[in-house]
Amino acid sequence: MSGLSAFGIGIASAQDTPPVLKGEGNGKRVIILGAGLAGLVAAYELGKKGYQCQVLEARHYAGGRVQTARTGFVLPQLGQEDEVCDFDEGEYFNHGPWRIPYHHRSTLHYTRELGIPLEIFVNHNEAAFVYREAAGPLSGRAVRQKEVIADMRGHAAEILAKHVDQDALDIPLTQEEREKFLEFLVGEGQLERNSLDYLGTGGRGYLQEPGAGLNPGEASTPHSLSALLQSDLYGIVSSVSGFTQQKTMFQPIGGMDRIPQAFEKALGDVISFGSQVTRLQQNGEQVLVDYRTRETGESHQVAADYCLCTIPLSVLRGIENDFSAEFQSAIEAVSYTPTCKLALQMKSRFWEVEDHVFGGHSFTHNSETGNISYPSTGWQSQKGVLQGVYNFGSNAAQFSALDKSQRIEKALSVGGKIHASYRREFETAFSTAWHLVPENLGGWASWSSEARETSYPLLNEPQGRVLLAGEHLSYMTGWMAGAIESAWLQIEKLHELAMEAG
Amino acid sequence: MSGLSAFGIGIASAQDTPPVLKGEGNGKRVIILGAGLAGLVAAYELGKKGYQCQVLEARHYAGGRVQTARTGFVLPQLGQEDEVCDFDEGEYFNHGPWRIPYHHRSTLHYTRELGIPLEIFVNHNEAAFVYREAAGPLSGRAVRQKEVIADMRGHAAEILAKHVDQDALDIPLTQEEREKFLEFLVGEGQLERNSLDYLGTGGRGYLQEPGAGLNPGEASTPHSLSALLQSDLYGIVSSVSGFTQQKTMFQPIGGMDRIPQAFEKALGDVISFGSQVTRLQQNGEQVLVDYRTRETGESHQVAADYCLCTIPLSVLRGIENDFSAEFQSAIEAVSYTPTCKLALQMKSRFWEVEDHVFGGHSFTHNSETGNISYPSTGWQSQKGVLQGVYNFGSNAAQFSALDKSQRIEKALSVGGKIHASYRREFETAFSTAWHLVPENLGGWASWSSEARETSYPLLNEPQGRVLLAGEHLSYMTGWMAGAIESAWLQIEKLHELAMEAG
Repeated sequence: MSGLSAFGIGIASAQDTPPVLKGEGNGKRVIILGAGLAGLVAAYELGKKGYQCQVLEARHYAGGRVQTARTGFVLPQLGQEDEVCDFDEGEYFNHGPWRIPYHHRSTLHYTRELGIPLEIFVNHNEAAFVYREAAGPLSGRAVRQKEVIADMRGHAAEILAKHVDQDALDIPLTQEEREKFLEFLVGEGQLERNSLDYLGTGGRGYLQEPGAGLNPGEASTPHSLSALLQSDLYGIVSSVSGFTQQKTMFQPIGGMDRIPQAFEKALGDVISFGSQVTRLQQNGEQVLVDYRTRETGESHQVAADYCLCTIPLSVLRGIENDFSAEFQSAIEAVSYTPTCKLALQMKSRFWEVEDHVFGGHSFTHNSETGNISYPSTGWQSQKGVLQGVYNFGSNAAQFSALDKSQRIEKALSVGGKIHASYRREFETAFSTAWHLVPENLGGWASWSSEARETSYPLLNEPQGRVLLAGEHLSYMTGWMAGAIESAWLQIEKLHELAMEAG
Repeated sequence: MSGLSAFGIGIASAQDTPPVLKGEGNGKRVIILGAGLAGLVAAYELGKKGYQCQVLEARHYAGGRVQTARTGFVLPQLGQEDEVCDFDEGEYFNHGPWRIPYHHRSTLHYTRELGIPLEIFVNHNEAAFVYREAAGPLSGRAVRQKEVIADMRGHAAEILAKHVDQDALDIPLTQEEREKFLEFLVGEGQLERNSLDYLGTGGRGYLQEPGAGLNPGEASTPHSLSALLQSDLYGIVSSVSGFTQQKTMFQPIGGMDRIPQAFEKALGDVISFGSQVTRLQQNGEQVLVDYRTRETGESHQVAADYCLCTIPLSVLRGIENDFSAEFQSAIEAVSYTPTCKLALQMKSRFWEVEDHVFGGHSFTHNSETGNISYPSTGWQSQKGVLQGVYNFGSNAAQFSALDKSQRIEKALSVGGKIHASYRREFETAFSTAWHLVPENLGGWASWSSEARETSYPLLNEPQGRVLLAGEHLSYMTGWMAGAIESAWLQIEKLHELAMEAG
């Protein structure tokens, strides 16, 4: 990903394309546990190589956590009434993965190969708001992020520029570099070139925007540095966005489940739905998997030459198996992040029409509910689905203890501080607590540094004829690319085993 | 556009919705010169109020500069062979306006009212490149913009933070604010919290990206401040983007000409195409417009109660008229910006597949050709149309003196420094020099401060029964919103005249 790759010097890595598997599978049987993204990718690639794959999936649909809620969609959650989506026809919400950054080349490899049309996911919108209640003169006001960004950088550049100009700093630059550095600060901070004062900039917004006729616009006044600091607004500013959050970002047109649906179509009839794994064993010759058909309650056993198990470790640890004690303890070593999302269908897109916010996130003061995210689809249509809650860890655990009407009330109360029409336009909600979803028991694997050292490497190694795969076996936990690339790595190892066995 | 508007305190302005015209047009005849966006908007709104509008348009299609080049599209330009678009079926290029920022509420008013589906135009992509050849160790290398942005801000924050930490600066902050300011700098610059050193950040990119299995990724090393300064890369960094360039930005799905097409459909049969205005006169009773039918060469005269003239001033000054000498001299006072675009159809989307650039702009070293812009549509499809040239002023004037193959050669030579496959994948081009397009004679009006004072106000005033409108009568020259909002202002004045006349 350096500039060199622009000249093709970089070599396509394990993150770009599936492994090239030399030799053929020759009908060897592979049983794949779980039709999430890792399982789908494995079945797809191994199938191409002549392996005979069967996928056991507990749910009646493929995708694992890659789900999209539409009218009629039901998500059972432990200790809760079944969550039933009652959105209007055409409205939907990705309550699992929702974003594909441009550098997740493995994910984009498949959207391209399978012909899944993409649209932009707006992950940055400085015209959205930040709202804080802590203290300071900007407390309790919805402030556009661009005001904070322009002003914090403007004030900081002014301070630095004036000291550089007076030669008051200890910096290892030549005179020529110093002049260029000053030029940088003037541009970065939008400073007056002579006084080096920061007096505001059009980019932070206008009191009156320039228009037609005799309206040249009226400039706005910056917030003072003290006000921004006292009001704790400055934390939203960062030189570049974090790697996983970077533009350009995508989503499939129509919902994230377009991805598993495309795999399912390409795979044909290899997935056994409603098949819940109850036991995983192996001998020197084969792997034996017991499973229960959910609909009938009947038990079955299937034998295979190899097994790729993509079941989340949070669930796998509850399934009878004959792994070594060391391996079992490695499976136990990871924790899974509790996380909730609450989607709010609104009668109108007031955030677009009234508040001129098109996509992106508003940063709320409330970590119980987290930030508000606006839909990146259906621009200017009548209704829309907001992400009103996205929380993690203990906030999520506590939030999921509320009943649904309490969850909605929390979300409306936070959103109402930013958008006047938030509560009035609310129509219906879809609520997810991933740690309560029985097939997942958590949002994603969360590795401590210690467990990464002690347990993680072992879980990546084949155990006899069984290999694991999934986002949990990656340094991109919680992302589809982690699941895909883990599958790529593990089928390569599986194929090696099969080739060695001859 | 302040946070207050979030609570509906702001009043819908002249920039949000068309003027509310009290009373009815009662069939009064309005002749509108030009079916560009100003003319279309005027005909649409006046038609709603019962005026009898006729639009004279020299071209055989509506939209003015709002054009989209597709296969078969022909653009005559002075002193050139007709430019004929020979793109593949399905490929297209907006060689006129190409972007709708979220705050152009007047434009978005019509995309919404007329049901024109929008998609995101990616106007910022820090994964695109900057390339300079001036000097310094980074000269002649395509560098990802995010490296420059992260490193410049990181180095600047480090310098400032260390001086703040040592209390070495003269800044008017309390001790508590000072601590928060330090916290801001650590976050903004991604500094090590203890040493306050900038050592790089994941956001600038990795040597090896974190992946699956035993790949935690390998960090990259920042460019030194001296290297960035010497190589003149720092100029791309700015606190926030300029107002007109801000996210969220849109384009109509399928091409910008979807907008005039939607107006045309809504208007019905009021536009006389191929009708070139040759004279504009008025008496106390009516306006008389002479025009020539292009196809037959026949001359006609049409009479109306009022006239709204949206012809670019660059062209209007060459049409016989009976304006006052003062008004004529005001029409002469504005200059029109020469500007060229060159669209390159490429056999493959190598910028996406090889270089992982999805939309946005790469900043070249060459102001003769300007920046390279990547398409924000057709993601991951086979072919695509790049904007290989976008230049202005004297660069554009000189560029348009080249023949087409020379223009293409210039573009390929610049683009080839950034993308290895640029030249090899080139297929065909569509070239526009707006200053040579006879119906426009320039990209947009460019007002000097002096002419804004002396001439501009007069041009906004009704001259008897004639009013002007267009982007040239706005402080948003070159933008569709300027044309729309000028039309809104001027039809309000026209309606007032009509009401006064009774």
